[in-house]
Amino acid sequence: MDAIGLIDGKIIALREKVIEIEDRGYQFGDGVYEVTMIYNRRPFALKLHMDRLFRSLRELKIPITYSFEELARFHGLLIEKSGLSEATVYLQITRGVAPRSHTFPKSVTPRLTMSIQPFTAHRDQSESGAATIFVPDERWLRCDIKSINLLGNLLARERATAAGVIEAVMVRPRDLFASPGTQLLDGIVTEGTHTNFFAVKDGRLHTHPANHLILRGISRTIVLDQLAPSLGIPAVEEPFDVAFAKSADEAFAAGSTVEITPFISFDGAPVGNGKVGPITRRLMDAFDALIAKECGIHK
Amino acid sequence: MDAIGLIDGKIIALREKVIEIEDRGYQFGDGVYEVTMIYNRRPFALKLHMDRLFRSLRELKIPITYSFEELARFHGLLIEKSGLSEATVYLQITRGVAPRSHTFPKSVTPRLTMSIQPFTAHRDQSESGAATIFVPDERWLRCDIKSINLLGNLLARERATAAGVIEAVMVRPRDLFASPGTQLLDGIVTEGTHTNFFAVKDGRLHTHPANHLILRGISRTIVLDQLAPSLGIPAVEEPFDVAFAKSADEAFAAGSTVEITPFISFDGAPVGNGKVGPITRRLMDAFDALIAKECGIHK
Repeated sequence: MDAIGLIDGKIIALREKVIEIEDRGYQFGDGVYEVTMIYNRRPFALKLHMDRLFRSLRELKIPITYSFEELARFHGLLIEKSGLSEATVYLQITRGVAPRSHTFPKSVTPRLTMSIQPFTAHRDQSESGAATIFVPDERWLRCDIKSINLLGNLLARERATAAGVIEAVMVRPRDLFASPGTQLLDGIVTEGTHTNFFAVKDGRLHTHPANHLILRGISRTIVLDQLAPSLGIPAVEEPFDVAFAKSADEAFAAGSTVEITPFISFDGAPVGNGKVGPITRRLMDAFDALIAKECGIHK
Repeated sequence: MDAIGLIDGKIIALREKVIEIEDRGYQFGDGVYEVTMIYNRRPFALKLHMDRLFRSLRELKIPITYSFEELARFHGLLIEKSGLSEATVYLQITRGVAPRSHTFPKSVTPRLTMSIQPFTAHRDQSESGAATIFVPDERWLRCDIKSINLLGNLLARERATAAGVIEAVMVRPRDLFASPGTQLLDGIVTEGTHTNFFAVKDGRLHTHPANHLILRGISRTIVLDQLAPSLGIPAVEEPFDVAFAKSADEAFAAGSTVEITPFISFDGAPVGNGKVGPITRRLMDAFDALIAKECGIHK
């Protein structure tokens, strides 16, 4: 079957031409998005994703024209029409169509587009652990908004791809005025290109605070608010540099599509003993159990 | 007549739906653009604009699939079909359509879209001078690429609109880790939201160097390479802070759509004596003369 999408509530073939040149999403990246995992035909953590979507819209002063219930229904519609059981649903809202001008148009109808694609989380990588590299964080200073201005993430991801790893971890140079790419080692570790970064040291989780420099990931929130407390693992949300990260006992990425994926090497050198660590393993198991419970999977 | 556009060389009505959801311009802002002024039915400085376009494409590794001659022909086509004499032509190239993935697709056809709209430069504001405000520069660190990731510019422009001024001038805080909006006064003045910023002090032009923190504007290049040398006005391309800018004798914005527009106030306080200064006036006249010469306008 051809891939399907949805525009303003209506199912379409994904390859259909449905967007005008002057959709502000197309000319300015003036929009926000979410990607939600589907397990066993059920969206995982949909309420958390949609709450974050509404926050992103408010930050950009894009009017909120769909309720949670409507957006949940559209997710269900895409799952049903596609027949997919394990998938990702992509959802984007732009400010809509208006004559091109930097100034926000006064009256405009936001546009919703969605798509669904088959997807299975990289359990193979989760089991054996993944390699990563540190790259400069060149993004804007409102990374807390999940906007479709994603070039900074794409360029970092290209560096990961070029290095043959699945994810790069971004580092803010302390000196903004230095040439791009310099001074990585004393820079602040922010997050991955599409995941949040966690280091484990002396039994504690360390991750960047959820301020303007990172996206508050849904999986990050689940780790910090649910899994770590239930397992009695303390967590510290304070900035740390590359040198600290490289001294960690364990490290992992948390994100919707990677779930919890252990990192076993940084820039080619092993993290800790180079194997998936015990705290990471406990969090992975707890995350799996949560997905199974929420999505009605019986093992 | 309805507004017209162009896609991949073909004239269309601007309101036509011609773009797929999975055009990477729509989902990632994965593209670049140029805006060229049309005077007397002729594009101004088109070669400089298209050279910058090609550079932006190279920086993002988007294949270059149109020659300067083809792009010049498309500009001519839009001018002819629209019947417009004074206008702006907008041109955008995205990486094209591919299944959504952060990783750059291996094989993809870049997509060209263009539009033309009637436009007359704000000569009224140029004559009397404009007010401006300083706002935080929250953009990414590759401002040298003229990409369609424009949210940082839009949010700064909204602050200008809210303050009732036509342009805001952006300031990079020295401390990247400070909360957004703090420490403006000792921050580095970069550029306007769609213009470059010049201060005039003791007979010299001062403007931010063309590095990763600003876009190398075409009008900026014309001022620095042609007008200032021909008028014997020295120019300094070094970073300066807000306090320095506020001590300037004169100041102006340079940009395609604003040409050279004097600033007569910063944050409500007068620049110099609060009137359009003599050096700014000489540059405005020289810029006018260059446009008239290149576009065959006889006064």
